[in-house]
Amino acid sequence: MPKPKLFIPGPVEISPATYEAMCAPMIGHRGSDFEELYSSIQPGLQQIAGTDRPVFLSTSSAWGVMEGAIRNLVQGKVLNLCCGAFSDKWFDVAQRCGKKAEKIQAEWGEPIDPGSVRNKLAEGGFDTVTLVHNETSTGVMNPLDEIASVVNEFEDVLLIVDSVSSFSAVPIPTDQLGVDVLLAGVQKAMALPPGLTVFVTSEAALSRAESTPDRGYYFDFLEFSKNHSKNNTPSTPSIALLQALDSMVASIMEEGLEERYRRHHENNALVHKWMEDSGFAHFAPEGFRSKTLTAVANNREIDVPAFVKALRIKHNFLINGGYGKIKGKTFRISNMGNETADSMKELLAALSDLLPDFL
Amino acid sequence: MPKPKLFIPGPVEISPATYEAMCAPMIGHRGSDFEELYSSIQPGLQQIAGTDRPVFLSTSSAWGVMEGAIRNLVQGKVLNLCCGAFSDKWFDVAQRCGKKAEKIQAEWGEPIDPGSVRNKLAEGGFDTVTLVHNETSTGVMNPLDEIASVVNEFEDVLLIVDSVSSFSAVPIPTDQLGVDVLLAGVQKAMALPPGLTVFVTSEAALSRAESTPDRGYYFDFLEFSKNHSKNNTPSTPSIALLQALDSMVASIMEEGLEERYRRHHENNALVHKWMEDSGFAHFAPEGFRSKTLTAVANNREIDVPAFVKALRIKHNFLINGGYGKIKGKTFRISNMGNETADSMKELLAALSDLLPDFL
Repeated sequence: MPKPKLFIPGPVEISPATYEAMCAPMIGHRGSDFEELYSSIQPGLQQIAGTDRPVFLSTSSAWGVMEGAIRNLVQGKVLNLCCGAFSDKWFDVAQRCGKKAEKIQAEWGEPIDPGSVRNKLAEGGFDTVTLVHNETSTGVMNPLDEIASVVNEFEDVLLIVDSVSSFSAVPIPTDQLGVDVLLAGVQKAMALPPGLTVFVTSEAALSRAESTPDRGYYFDFLEFSKNHSKNNTPSTPSIALLQALDSMVASIMEEGLEERYRRHHENNALVHKWMEDSGFAHFAPEGFRSKTLTAVANNREIDVPAFVKALRIKHNFLINGGYGKIKGKTFRISNMGNETADSMKELLAALSDLLPDFL
Repeated sequence: MPKPKLFIPGPVEISPATYEAMCAPMIGHRGSDFEELYSSIQPGLQQIAGTDRPVFLSTSSAWGVMEGAIRNLVQGKVLNLCCGAFSDKWFDVAQRCGKKAEKIQAEWGEPIDPGSVRNKLAEGGFDTVTLVHNETSTGVMNPLDEIASVVNEFEDVLLIVDSVSSFSAVPIPTDQLGVDVLLAGVQKAMALPPGLTVFVTSEAALSRAESTPDRGYYFDFLEFSKNHSKNNTPSTPSIALLQALDSMVASIMEEGLEERYRRHHENNALVHKWMEDSGFAHFAPEGFRSKTLTAVANNREIDVPAFVKALRIKHNFLINGGYGKIKGKTFRISNMGNETADSMKELLAALSDLLPDFL
């Protein structure tokens, strides 16, 4: 079977320019060629990440740094803000690291309520909060600025934010918001092959890490910081992916961040328009919808697996039939990465072509 | 400056076939395309790893799994067998994970003495041993079979082996030797871009992990095992590198393992011959020399950094000028990966061309 074009919420379609960059000659990671590559990536990546601080490069998928952030920061108790598959799992992972954890659990499809965060933190004992900005499983975009503002009311409580499916697609002013760890796998909004995670740590996060025992080596924030000063990484990095990242960052700078935000907004609106025209409802409430993917509520009760399969067979496009316990009750359409109004319209026309057979 | 051809001990030169495989269309990791890719890799990789057990695929460099193995297995105390930069560091990493650790320290350039391992384990209290098979920093290949045999004398002591620069270049009968964790980053002997580590766990290792607290999620052996049964990985994998691995495993199977071992042996012998002809001594003692890289002792007292630089400028080849505290006292030449007798001879001719100017 030919490989379909990906409109799933990551990984997404890889551009020819990215492939070409991945195939640049291999270089050693302990020499000047690598140092040049590393430092070349920084300024653009800092702009995307809304920070003046270093952006560290972890050779892992996002879960590595999500776990690493727990191991670096949590000394007392972590509060996990849960509203979907990935944010829920963070609560589980925190406990697997031997950390004390409590959670706020929103219904899948609902955002986190900043007021509930304030109430919970007021109980005391927490030193860390985890938030998934864009919960990819439900299509919900949480109110990052309000939640960050609440967390900042509490001295010595640090905020870890996973922005895997929002990073570079919407503004994330990390420093300004007082986010202590911002992390993103590169295979969603950044449209690179998976295997690399970028992350930023605040001064407070590094300072906390210093006194956190048993944080290990591979994800030790202080090791990243130490090596960053030499334009390097603690362990052998995924060099081909860094070459691809360098190219992608340059291309994002060329497009311009404002234009990139606008493009994602408009492409996302095209999907919303198709939904309305087709009689589908949103799974996420208005005001809390991701700009990079849409979780479509299956209120028309189509056979989602069959619909996804037919789309692949007839049009060679792949969308996602829903995640975990909302499989089939939702399906998800991505507009991440390099998609254009034209490429989105092609997909949506294909969906429209098939839909009548499923109603 | 043009990028030189790499004869450093990893990463090494990437073949056009590998690049092509990396650029196969991206696929989702939670569907049948990925399951096919995953299962396609297994049989060949099991053969290379000398095991009937699954070969797990970790999206990390080797240090991730080296740390992960400590977190999964060590409940009492670990014995780290140290004889160079990487094996020494494992002792440090074990302690950073909050584990009790002791070490046997051989001089850099010397192998681990199996007798000393027996004596140390006889003191009691150890449940895990770490060994770097091929200490890449010193060019020493440790006597894996003898050390494994000693460790197996002690019930309930598990053996973790890093074979990053020997994997696929020399036979490693993992199951037969009773190795409990065998791991290898793919960027050295496997000649892939870095960012992926393959590893095997014994039944005893999985069983130990079950009762080891705080082992986390990202490197949790039981998660790898659980997902393996679905031809999948716990976290989003480095798909492009897995596509490259699939192609490389097929190419190794086509070459044949015996032929591959022979080729490495012969290419390595060419380097040894050049050393003798040029009046250089080995850093590692006879009988304990790596088959994939050679640590040349700088007994002729050449200016190593200048020699390495001249080789790059005049011939566009890169060798390594020595690691850590033996920088300049040694230099290292790799014959890993896809090198042939002809390509090695080209390098050695270039070295011969330059050497007179440095004596």
